[in-house]
Amino acid sequence: MKKSLLVVAHGSRRQASNDEVRALTERVRAESNERFAAIECAFLELAEPSIPDGLARLIADGAAHITVLPYFLSAGRHVAEDIPEEVEGVQAAHPDVHIEIAPYLGTSEVMPRLLLTMLGDSAAASA
Amino acid sequence: MKKSLLVVAHGSRRQASNDEVRALTERVRAESNERFAAIECAFLELAEPSIPDGLARLIADGAAHITVLPYFLSAGRHVAEDIPEEVEGVQAAHPDVHIEIAPYLGTSEVMPRLLLTMLGDSAAASA
Repeated sequence: MKKSLLVVAHGSRRQASNDEVRALTERVRAESNERFAAIECAFLELAEPSIPDGLARLIADGAAHITVLPYFLSAGRHVAEDIPEEVEGVQAAHPDVHIEIAPYLGTSEVMPRLLLTMLGDSAAASA
Repeated sequence: MKKSLLVVAHGSRRQASNDEVRALTERVRAESNERFAAIECAFLELAEPSIPDGLARLIADGAAHITVLPYFLSAGRHVAEDIPEEVEGVQAAHPDVHIEIAPYLGTSEVMPRLLLTMLGDSAAASA
């Protein structure tokens, strides 16, 4: 059975920032090759839906296994404590649903390569 | 002449978070194939060096052209206002040095692909 995915971002007072996360989630959906049953985003604070609301939406939609992906660059308090706390509350209310938290974005092994690519690595490679 | 690179992160009260940025910068340096004259990191707040200090270090080291890369996921106030403001102060004091701000990390076109890869995309691709 396919897993569902919840991309969790910090949330901002600037709606444009939140919309960036929503657009990213759309693109993940478009590029996911229907690998996930559903893909949604949620915000730790300052924007909607909240993490519990995002999880509830997926569960109401029939999700039995949800992967939470923290769209964060470093393991600050939000990643280390706040997101797990929000998830645990929902998990306790839905013991039948398996919810797991994936490593946060900043742990990606390819991050240095991504930064160099953004800076025009290909040009450098040919130099 | 080679450019110099300053990776700018938010900074955290958690030293482990700041050390993640320092380790990332080390890896960018290691994978950069000596494309930059120098690569350093700096923090907008809560950690050292500050952006002005990071820029000053590169300039003292002879940098004539510096690219500032905001290690940020969305265009909040920090990216839109705070980083440009910090850079402008240094630029005004060093009109002979060319300082440019690159697009922030969150604008990367490959971000959706990166997230899917982190979630084990290769396994899905073969399914």
